[in-house]
Amino acid sequence: MDVIGREHCLDDCAVFRFGETSMVASTDMLHETADFPAGMTDWQRGWMSIAVTLSDIAAMGAAPCFVMLAVGLDRGSRLKAILQGARECCDRHGAVLAGGDLDAHGELTMVSSGIGFTDHPIRRAGARPGDLLCVTGVPGRAQAALAGYHQYDRFLFEPVPMVREGMILAQAGVTSMMDNSDGLVISLHDMMEANPGCGYMVDSGALPRLADIPTEEAREFSLYGGGDFGLICTCPPEIVLPKDLDIQVIGSVIKGCDVLVDGKKADIKGYQHLWDE
Amino acid sequence: MDVIGREHCLDDCAVFRFGETSMVASTDMLHETADFPAGMTDWQRGWMSIAVTLSDIAAMGAAPCFVMLAVGLDRGSRLKAILQGARECCDRHGAVLAGGDLDAHGELTMVSSGIGFTDHPIRRAGARPGDLLCVTGVPGRAQAALAGYHQYDRFLFEPVPMVREGMILAQAGVTSMMDNSDGLVISLHDMMEANPGCGYMVDSGALPRLADIPTEEAREFSLYGGGDFGLICTCPPEIVLPKDLDIQVIGSVIKGCDVLVDGKKADIKGYQHLWDE
Repeated sequence: MDVIGREHCLDDCAVFRFGETSMVASTDMLHETADFPAGMTDWQRGWMSIAVTLSDIAAMGAAPCFVMLAVGLDRGSRLKAILQGARECCDRHGAVLAGGDLDAHGELTMVSSGIGFTDHPIRRAGARPGDLLCVTGVPGRAQAALAGYHQYDRFLFEPVPMVREGMILAQAGVTSMMDNSDGLVISLHDMMEANPGCGYMVDSGALPRLADIPTEEAREFSLYGGGDFGLICTCPPEIVLPKDLDIQVIGSVIKGCDVLVDGKKADIKGYQHLWDE
Repeated sequence: MDVIGREHCLDDCAVFRFGETSMVASTDMLHETADFPAGMTDWQRGWMSIAVTLSDIAAMGAAPCFVMLAVGLDRGSRLKAILQGARECCDRHGAVLAGGDLDAHGELTMVSSGIGFTDHPIRRAGARPGDLLCVTGVPGRAQAALAGYHQYDRFLFEPVPMVREGMILAQAGVTSMMDNSDGLVISLHDMMEANPGCGYMVDSGALPRLADIPTEEAREFSLYGGGDFGLICTCPPEIVLPKDLDIQVIGSVIKGCDVLVDGKKADIKGYQHLWDE
């Protein structure tokens, strides 16, 4: 096996080309206080720690191969449930939980690292003005759960990475893709960075409805809420999107360097890490 | 590329076979207080966080391909030096630093995850009674530094993973291999677990000498000290060990289930993680 090209840039994963095939790789760190919502079980923490990395692999259109999990544990008794959740998330998405590392730590800390393969990785870069802008699922459900709409709790506590959807969209011919776990609008700003000369226009009326939530509040969750594991992608208007996919056209790629929502420039709001310099 | 077999067991790395080639993968978590010796610079912490994973890949006899680094940072100002050290350790050993994840955390926490390739992975399992037992380098140097023998500081602060040595030993036909970062005797107990029916006999007089340290103290460091990045391997007596390798025969594989040092059963001492149940 020859490595004929190695690249990494602004994508969810690093990409390594081996002849016709590309290997994609991602790593994600989660901490108890900052990343796991209150009320989660350890099984769910294990599940989520795998789901974040599978979501990155899904966003490249790749088939996951394996995930490793490093766990910094405050109490040994938590390990069993964590590993059960991690294993089930791997099993459900065709990945092997390939061991990891175990450490004692004051705060529960988990890092998952995964590998996937694809013959045609989809990057954040690749959008073209005139492309349609699409999302899978219903953006804002995790944020709705955080705000106390408990009918949405499972989207926050057991997020499902869009592994099947990512592979189907790659096959269908999308031009760029990423996951929206930091929130829709902030993710569009990230996509803009990877696509110089491209901006994005969102029609908030086209966003899938968050049922049983007042319209304005629902709009805020959909545009700015984090914690969802949907995919954002762009595709040529002539593309035929598979009918059995839960996907919506919500706007389009425009010339420029703005993210416009209903014609107005959208603020960067969403999940960003902060620390003291 | 077809995955024709997937295995993982008691090795430093998980192993995935793709036709004739195997991919090996490892992940390691390091915390500021538990894993980094006092007095280290952030550059050295970055270097070491990569070295631990490259050492696991080296112990499989594989060529490293890339390493990802997840960093939980207490202060953003530390990042630059950490990444410089990490990048240099990758560069020196033929690996790509392929991005990672960045997070805010109360205690500096780093997790490196790496991938390597080899046509013939060497496992912990594979030893046969009658094989010679060998080590690379001088076991105990890191522990000597910890004990205040500052002439050994560089072995503690900038450990060099035996990447070249691991590949050469795999080519030469060693039967089993692992790294000795937890200490020689404890590692031999780990090897015993992977090789049912095999014990290990060490002649402490054959251990490479730790210069300028009293004999008894040096013997203790060599047998039980942790933090070294040497390789332990077994090989048939007829093997021709490459002359330019820094490797010593220190004993042999015996029938049974004991680790004997100078004929006496050796205690399990070395690095083990503890936490409250």
